[in-house]
Amino acid sequence: MIKKLLVANRGEIAVRIIRACQELNIETVAVYSEADKEALHVKLADEAYCIGPTPATQSYLNFTNIMSVATLTESDAIHPGYGFLSENADFAEICGACNIKFVGPSPQAISRMGAKDVARETMAEAGVPIVPGSDGIVADIAEGLKVADKIGYPVIIKATAGGGGKGIRVARTPEELEKGISITQKEAQANFGNPGVYMEKYIEDFRHVEIQIIADDFGNTVHLGERDCSIQRRLQKLIEETPSPAITPEKRQEMGAAAIKAAEAVDYTGAGTIEFIYDHRTGEFYFMEMNTRIQVEHPVTEMVTGIDLIKEQINVANGHKLSFSQEDVTFNGWSIECRINAENAAKNFMPSPGKVQNYYSSGGLGVRVDSAVYSGYTISPFYDSMVAKVITHGATREEAIAKMKRALSEFEIEGVDTTIPFHLRLLNNETFISGDFNTKFLEENQIMNDH
Amino acid sequence: MIKKLLVANRGEIAVRIIRACQELNIETVAVYSEADKEALHVKLADEAYCIGPTPATQSYLNFTNIMSVATLTESDAIHPGYGFLSENADFAEICGACNIKFVGPSPQAISRMGAKDVARETMAEAGVPIVPGSDGIVADIAEGLKVADKIGYPVIIKATAGGGGKGIRVARTPEELEKGISITQKEAQANFGNPGVYMEKYIEDFRHVEIQIIADDFGNTVHLGERDCSIQRRLQKLIEETPSPAITPEKRQEMGAAAIKAAEAVDYTGAGTIEFIYDHRTGEFYFMEMNTRIQVEHPVTEMVTGIDLIKEQINVANGHKLSFSQEDVTFNGWSIECRINAENAAKNFMPSPGKVQNYYSSGGLGVRVDSAVYSGYTISPFYDSMVAKVITHGATREEAIAKMKRALSEFEIEGVDTTIPFHLRLLNNETFISGDFNTKFLEENQIMNDH
Repeated sequence: MIKKLLVANRGEIAVRIIRACQELNIETVAVYSEADKEALHVKLADEAYCIGPTPATQSYLNFTNIMSVATLTESDAIHPGYGFLSENADFAEICGACNIKFVGPSPQAISRMGAKDVARETMAEAGVPIVPGSDGIVADIAEGLKVADKIGYPVIIKATAGGGGKGIRVARTPEELEKGISITQKEAQANFGNPGVYMEKYIEDFRHVEIQIIADDFGNTVHLGERDCSIQRRLQKLIEETPSPAITPEKRQEMGAAAIKAAEAVDYTGAGTIEFIYDHRTGEFYFMEMNTRIQVEHPVTEMVTGIDLIKEQINVANGHKLSFSQEDVTFNGWSIECRINAENAAKNFMPSPGKVQNYYSSGGLGVRVDSAVYSGYTISPFYDSMVAKVITHGATREEAIAKMKRALSEFEIEGVDTTIPFHLRLLNNETFISGDFNTKFLEENQIMNDH
Repeated sequence: MIKKLLVANRGEIAVRIIRACQELNIETVAVYSEADKEALHVKLADEAYCIGPTPATQSYLNFTNIMSVATLTESDAIHPGYGFLSENADFAEICGACNIKFVGPSPQAISRMGAKDVARETMAEAGVPIVPGSDGIVADIAEGLKVADKIGYPVIIKATAGGGGKGIRVARTPEELEKGISITQKEAQANFGNPGVYMEKYIEDFRHVEIQIIADDFGNTVHLGERDCSIQRRLQKLIEETPSPAITPEKRQEMGAAAIKAAEAVDYTGAGTIEFIYDHRTGEFYFMEMNTRIQVEHPVTEMVTGIDLIKEQINVANGHKLSFSQEDVTFNGWSIECRINAENAAKNFMPSPGKVQNYYSSGGLGVRVDSAVYSGYTISPFYDSMVAKVITHGATREEAIAKMKRALSEFEIEGVDTTIPFHLRLLNNETFISGDFNTKFLEENQIMNDH
């Protein structure tokens, strides 16, 4: 049984995990970089240790230092959160070797889904629909051009080690493809330590619909419905919701079954997400990738299912059975999440780090705020610029939107620019309100500039 | 249809009502006393008007000024919140005469339930169980002594115009009764403008269990389950929860049916609460009083039923049918509310007004905060000392308590003393955790002093 858990992350997800542990009477160990010594996760944890300088490679990605803290504090589990080491099979492996539970899937499952080209192949074999594309890694530009000729432009170049919107690039011409392959390879090498890229036909008019799954060691895999994450800017999600306005109960079942098949194909355990390209004109869907970790947008699923995903991750990591079966899962109402960043939308989303002078997070019925910000906290320029996830829950989509508008209107973060005004404009956009949009919504609508 | 609503209240309940209106696209008008010009409800409303000096009698109880603002702003409804004018039949009557919807029951229903002796009689006639006591108002001390001789000591003296824990006194001997009647009469005259008192047998070992009801103009009355409010100090509730640890589903149905009978006996419309004395040894219950308004503790009911009581009050005031029937009402999980006051529990709950230097309200899954406090706000000594209602929701009572402990641990209000340390001790008390306690719990347990 997990008695003490090290949180190998920072920001709101570290806070989220610490809160769950506190409620489960599990002691918590925070780790932090030099820039983060005043961070909320450091204040909330039972113990906290500095693991190195500000650059993530020297701290939040530093295996040795993290494992040293885990060993010295006698932690019996590590929760990696999202990003950083969460999808690093080697790290999961080392945890196992040190007899420390990694709250996540096996290293093998991470590897097979992490190598995006292997994942594609695995899915194809398991009978999960995939988008036409390259047969594994594209060796060089010449091969890339050949693949593109076969499947037709536009194509999408993806780093096999990427994920979460990083290491992805679209090419509409051979020229763009040449440049795109070499840039993506370089970026992938720099960011993920692996230059491999593969290619897929780029489907332009689709919705990003993903299925949350969770599995235990006893062969039980359950899906918790979909999240629609079509509101993206440069492949970064800005608003997520569940249910999807485009998904019927029948389609949910069909996609849920495919997601379970995908997870079972790699003997998956723990929480994970299968992302699909959903063609909302035809109802067809294709495997995009699997995120073998908890996701930023997991709260909307929690709001409609009533299931605490972090606690359930810990439950499964403890070697217990899932605390519910597929039949127990019900979906109540509608939930929306807005990711609020310290950025200036009018200045092309330029990051706006700095000291928060006044922080007031909205409250009341149906409003949840997951954040690591407080009055007097300095938002660092060194990490991502997310300052708060505002999540609302209502009986209908209309109510969830109305609650979000209300919640964002009363939210205050002084001292830095935030994307709250941008989100408020977006929530008032007729197309957004209609629910009928695709992943190009933000490209095609002038939300950002009409300040 | 209500397009603009005046909120005739202050503090968290004014904020609660304004939030609901914003989500319903109803314009809001705030009113405030001279002491409250920086209050959150003033900042959040679309319009705000000062209605007089700080003493409530000159502002929040000032009919003329409130009605003037309502008329001048062309408000078509008034929500009275709780306290102040919420159970004032004359005020409800004047609203009607001015063609402004009073969000609450008819003046007749308020009067019949407000005169506690008349309410007792009405309930007896309707077949709702009542506690043995005086036959209406006790004319003088001599009559009081006679009643006490008949029903036996201890007795409880209640102001007929009282409510919410005010104008109530227990007497265990004829001497205490003599003093008690005359003090209660004087207090009742001073506080409610009506010196009338009546008497009941004082049942010592009971739980305070109340049933939330809501009714429309079409004869539909629905109950939304119970709230257990047995954790009280000097008859003021400090913690409320639903479900009650002492109530079975069968008992819930029985008490719900009695509550509906009580409401129907006065042709009740809107939201209301029937408070019962619940003898947890025998399962017997007796009518205590009806609160003909929304209550402080309404959020716990919202958390487990998913029903927004303020929106439903407005829906019914609009002359619409209830948006649900009894069969639609389900109860999910467990919810607890802690009322956090700016008081020093170690100094006999001495009020601690002053400027809030730093305010951080906890967040995350299953935590709701209803508050009107913000960093820099000055808590006034002139009104009640409640600064926040912290409400948690979990799958079980154990989880709701764990969440509350976590939420209160991370809550920060600097600059004033609060009852958070007291609540944390209470939440760790074995008897509280067991769920087996009565309304004397705080008298009989040394929660307050073991600082």
